[in-house]
Amino acid sequence: MDTRSCLLTPRFTIHRNNLEKLFYPRSVAVVGTNNIKGTVPYDILFNILKAEFRGILFPVSPGEKSICSVRAYKYVIDIDHPVDLAILVFPAQVCHLAMEQCGQKGIKAVVIISAGFKETGEKGWEREMQLREIAVKYDMSFIGPNCLGVINTDPAVNLNASFARRMPEEGSIGFLSQSGALCTAVLDYARAKHIGFSKFISFGNKADISEIDLLYYLKDDEKTKVILLYLEEVSDGQGLMQAAQDIIVDTGKPILILKSGRTEAGATAAASHTGSLAGSDEICNAAFRQAGIIRCGNIEEMFNIAIAFAYQPLPKSGRIAIVTNAGGPGVLTTDAAIMEGLELASFNEETTQLYKKYLPATANIKNPVDVIGDAKADRYNLAISGAICDPGVDGIFVILTPQSMTNIDAIANEIVQVTNGYNKPVYASFMGEADVRSGVDILQRNKIPHYILPESMCRSFARVYRFGSERHERNTKPKDFKDVNKEAARAVLLDSLNQGLTFLSEDKAVKVLGAYHLPVLQGKIATTPAQAMALAAEIGFPVAMKVLSDEIFHKSDIKGVVLNVTNVGEADKAFRAIIHQASALMPNARIRGVYITRMVNSGQEVILGIKRDPSFGAVIMFGLGGIFVELYRDVSFGVAPVNESLAESMIHGTKAYGLLNGARGTTKFDTTGIKTCIMRLSQLAVDLPQIKELDINPLIVLQEGSGCFVADAKIVLG
Amino acid sequence: MDTRSCLLTPRFTIHRNNLEKLFYPRSVAVVGTNNIKGTVPYDILFNILKAEFRGILFPVSPGEKSICSVRAYKYVIDIDHPVDLAILVFPAQVCHLAMEQCGQKGIKAVVIISAGFKETGEKGWEREMQLREIAVKYDMSFIGPNCLGVINTDPAVNLNASFARRMPEEGSIGFLSQSGALCTAVLDYARAKHIGFSKFISFGNKADISEIDLLYYLKDDEKTKVILLYLEEVSDGQGLMQAAQDIIVDTGKPILILKSGRTEAGATAAASHTGSLAGSDEICNAAFRQAGIIRCGNIEEMFNIAIAFAYQPLPKSGRIAIVTNAGGPGVLTTDAAIMEGLELASFNEETTQLYKKYLPATANIKNPVDVIGDAKADRYNLAISGAICDPGVDGIFVILTPQSMTNIDAIANEIVQVTNGYNKPVYASFMGEADVRSGVDILQRNKIPHYILPESMCRSFARVYRFGSERHERNTKPKDFKDVNKEAARAVLLDSLNQGLTFLSEDKAVKVLGAYHLPVLQGKIATTPAQAMALAAEIGFPVAMKVLSDEIFHKSDIKGVVLNVTNVGEADKAFRAIIHQASALMPNARIRGVYITRMVNSGQEVILGIKRDPSFGAVIMFGLGGIFVELYRDVSFGVAPVNESLAESMIHGTKAYGLLNGARGTTKFDTTGIKTCIMRLSQLAVDLPQIKELDINPLIVLQEGSGCFVADAKIVLG
Repeated sequence: MDTRSCLLTPRFTIHRNNLEKLFYPRSVAVVGTNNIKGTVPYDILFNILKAEFRGILFPVSPGEKSICSVRAYKYVIDIDHPVDLAILVFPAQVCHLAMEQCGQKGIKAVVIISAGFKETGEKGWEREMQLREIAVKYDMSFIGPNCLGVINTDPAVNLNASFARRMPEEGSIGFLSQSGALCTAVLDYARAKHIGFSKFISFGNKADISEIDLLYYLKDDEKTKVILLYLEEVSDGQGLMQAAQDIIVDTGKPILILKSGRTEAGATAAASHTGSLAGSDEICNAAFRQAGIIRCGNIEEMFNIAIAFAYQPLPKSGRIAIVTNAGGPGVLTTDAAIMEGLELASFNEETTQLYKKYLPATANIKNPVDVIGDAKADRYNLAISGAICDPGVDGIFVILTPQSMTNIDAIANEIVQVTNGYNKPVYASFMGEADVRSGVDILQRNKIPHYILPESMCRSFARVYRFGSERHERNTKPKDFKDVNKEAARAVLLDSLNQGLTFLSEDKAVKVLGAYHLPVLQGKIATTPAQAMALAAEIGFPVAMKVLSDEIFHKSDIKGVVLNVTNVGEADKAFRAIIHQASALMPNARIRGVYITRMVNSGQEVILGIKRDPSFGAVIMFGLGGIFVELYRDVSFGVAPVNESLAESMIHGTKAYGLLNGARGTTKFDTTGIKTCIMRLSQLAVDLPQIKELDINPLIVLQEGSGCFVADAKIVLG
Repeated sequence: MDTRSCLLTPRFTIHRNNLEKLFYPRSVAVVGTNNIKGTVPYDILFNILKAEFRGILFPVSPGEKSICSVRAYKYVIDIDHPVDLAILVFPAQVCHLAMEQCGQKGIKAVVIISAGFKETGEKGWEREMQLREIAVKYDMSFIGPNCLGVINTDPAVNLNASFARRMPEEGSIGFLSQSGALCTAVLDYARAKHIGFSKFISFGNKADISEIDLLYYLKDDEKTKVILLYLEEVSDGQGLMQAAQDIIVDTGKPILILKSGRTEAGATAAASHTGSLAGSDEICNAAFRQAGIIRCGNIEEMFNIAIAFAYQPLPKSGRIAIVTNAGGPGVLTTDAAIMEGLELASFNEETTQLYKKYLPATANIKNPVDVIGDAKADRYNLAISGAICDPGVDGIFVILTPQSMTNIDAIANEIVQVTNGYNKPVYASFMGEADVRSGVDILQRNKIPHYILPESMCRSFARVYRFGSERHERNTKPKDFKDVNKEAARAVLLDSLNQGLTFLSEDKAVKVLGAYHLPVLQGKIATTPAQAMALAAEIGFPVAMKVLSDEIFHKSDIKGVVLNVTNVGEADKAFRAIIHQASALMPNARIRGVYITRMVNSGQEVILGIKRDPSFGAVIMFGLGGIFVELYRDVSFGVAPVNESLAESMIHGTKAYGLLNGARGTTKFDTTGIKTCIMRLSQLAVDLPQIKELDINPLIVLQEGSGCFVADAKIVLG
């Protein structure tokens, strides 16, 4: 599995020109089409025709003279005109033949719709590799196989090279999906809500063009303002993060990802249908957050947020005004807003006076503004006008319930009119479904984000606001510690690997960490009771004593660790006990002695670690020590390299931060020290791929300014 | 505010007959109607006519001879026929006059639509009280004021006594709402989805008939299978819990509540529009769970769960089968199912063979079953048939994406047909919106619960399943400890209250807790250093010493506590230090001496407490001690009286339980001891309303079988 996954990473930087031909072809050949209505080969051709494609269309079908009244060619090489893009709908078994001909014809961009490749097993995977080889040979780029196709709504081309039922409306959302079937649901969902797309791409098995290539294409695509991506596996996590960061920093375009396979069962289901590798969902979450990617829980949430980005400006703050014709929904909206971290704006004197003067006496003129059940469009106009002009308001939520006197369409039109020309986000929730439908339609056509539930409205606003406020924090460079001794650390690792060891004994782990100036406690090795007594006294009591062996990993489990040794007598006893235990329980282990270090007894225990995630590579972990990790899962992750602000937010991101920062007037611990350790560990993780897993447990943190100490470290090689 | 709230609890048990007349009247008078289309007084009358009410309708309007071609009367007393139900739409100022006449006429059931009462302030509240007085005088019952009205879809009456735009379909959901405007949104939402109602009641200010009366009515209403309630304030929490328990135990009908005012700002907004009192949302959550009430986050979730209950049988287990025509959505559904605690069923040999034989080779015949994108109704039939006959499957989720070959309506009809006659829940998710609409309509009309999102489907199934599996656990009686000395505890409290004290000093708190056999550490009071030394020695070292004064509540804050006193010399020093500190920092406090107790040093610290919630009364709290409570909010609540299974689930409900139960092979602590303490504390809380707040912090829990000890207790009176 591992090797296969490696092969699937991009083989070369996709030629810009090829992608241009994919999305803006002047001529398209549909290879393998036929005359049987209701089949994919026919539907694709007819979709291109129906969408009024601006270039020339060439059906290629060995058995037909014409298809849909368009003259057909037997083979693609027979076409007496240059072809920019080929759509392949041949059966998987013979796809490579068509591909070869496309290459000969000089076609640079291909969409392979056909299924029956990697997703079906070993044989299919070989067929997929064959397509890749042909692509390399002719310098072609292709989408798929096993996909729905590609859509470009730009009126300059009007390209619907897919077997979707309908062409979507033009819009500013770029949509990328690993699942073709999901695309059909998304297109249908979007059509009902007048959500438009700039580009719509089902990329299937991504044997050649990957989601990352497509992300970079959409980065520069002027028609795209918001990027949506459905993924079942993250094959190149670092590449995805880099692409996201480049896009956000350079263009400010938000990236929303729906990633499935979150649970083990889900990942298994995904594997059986795409052959993917599963990483940890928790790490995926952290990585996305780190890269500024907005992770969505489901399709609805994804579009709820996407339309907010696409239709309205970014909010300047979380201070919102609620305008409603119903008290109950006003309360529900207030609850939701507060729970999403927003604030109810306080109106200024001017707004208050306006409301006092023109709203009915029974209206609530405080936020949420209740214009009362018999409100018509004029009263909504007034309430919204007031809020939109109030400098204390940075977003407006308009709620409507269809009461008997409510003129729903008029109010919808009023919202569109009155908010026009202001640079303040306005969202609406017309609660209900049947009666409010025409009003909702007016809002949707006029790009007022609409939500059936006020809760979704608040959530979407909060996500958009957070994106805007966090955008400038990104992309500071990770610190490069020059004082480290990479070669020394590397030598320890290689030496151990050469000896066939799978983990490092404590003295060696200390050497590795010490080479990166992590605050290890330098220890000494005793091989006799007398030496143990002398060394312990030299180090200074209390000391910790641990069995030292290249073959004993879980030292505590065999009682190979004695802590708090306070005098020479105890040191003598501890030495004998440790050696006795180890020899008895691990008779085959070669014992190199007992490792003695100073004990640090006061301080707060935390843990630090390195993990290797199959998707994202080196990941640094931080959490409170002891039972906390297990009971409360109070840990945070950062994908290496970890810069200073990320290290800080890793610490702040745990609830444990309250404790470290001196909750209830207790000691403030040295979080600066932890931060430095996280950054040094990150550099170590990047420099030394020989380390498969590393655990510092515990790191003992002293009070503010006094640093911290590595009390125990385990390094697994691999 | 407090007294007002008290007055609003039911004044007497609502006469069954009055409610019968409310919902099944043979004659209705609309009092205060008029001839002006588009006004509430007219709309109500016309709604009754339009719904084809089976009884006689009497318009009452001082100025009109007829309304909507029905002969009108000047006053209600002029009607020469008995009247069962009156709908009042008079202005608030004169409502009492109409009410008085209704009383004279012998009308027993009234719906007061008019607004302008409690929700507008003091004046309005007085008007509301006046209506109540009249109702008492004539033994009438009324709904409202300030409401949308009452609907009964039973064809025996066809009553739409509301100003809603439309009469809902007949169905088995009973809906109760404190907000009238929300009703309009709900009716509109439900209409589009063919969700039917048995009874639909907007109860507004509930000046007379409360949600609790209505719950009991719906309990016995044969037409109602599921009960939904929207609430902005819980005025009688204990009554609500009792009603819910009675309904669930006696009838098995589920109760779903959407409770707003969860945040402080939301509660403020609710107060400004209903004049409600806010309790803690966390306690509300716990109380609902305890009573078996299903709390919903929003309207959509409420109906998602409601239709599952209304349309399909309860699942026997959480083992579900997924049938899908798309891999991606299959993965999303698997993720969601697992995250909701469901399981993917394993198919038996028979099912597997069936699938192998009849599904295409490329189909995935394991769960989730992928019938592939070109599946038509026959293939869905086969896949569903297999799963529905498999004894290892207890629920079926059918997913559809609108691919080009998908015959959506035929598949919808097939789902209806093939699942008919089996007692296994079947839910569906047709993903998309426009193209799938007609198929969804078929499902909705045929009572297959449909969800746009697979996530909502899984969530709803899980909630229904959990309700079914927890139903039999309820209603065991709380233990009644006979060994307690209520009078002794009461005497301590009354004595302190008589002295004007607001809290108990430790010796008194120990007396109160001791009277309920909570495991207090009996202490002794020293008034001189010599006595302190002697008593400490007598008790046995180590001891704890604390300042004893009726005026010092926060003893630690003034260094009035010395722990771990290990010999007489230290006891002497500690006594002097405590007295010195207390005299210096609290010069006006009368110091009664130093309280000396034994120290228990080993064990896990937990906390127990009593709180009084304005909605639910006495609430018992449990959590892990120390920083855990603040950092992780890892606490649980139980509304008193707490029975054994609740006490147990309070302990199990915290993450701390892992620790207490011996996580990672560490000590198992005496959770049985904690359980007993919780139950005894519950009895104490019920018996002694003089206690406003009580904190046992910490309760030191020893290892399993060794009990626990109250190391410190604070009791606040009030």
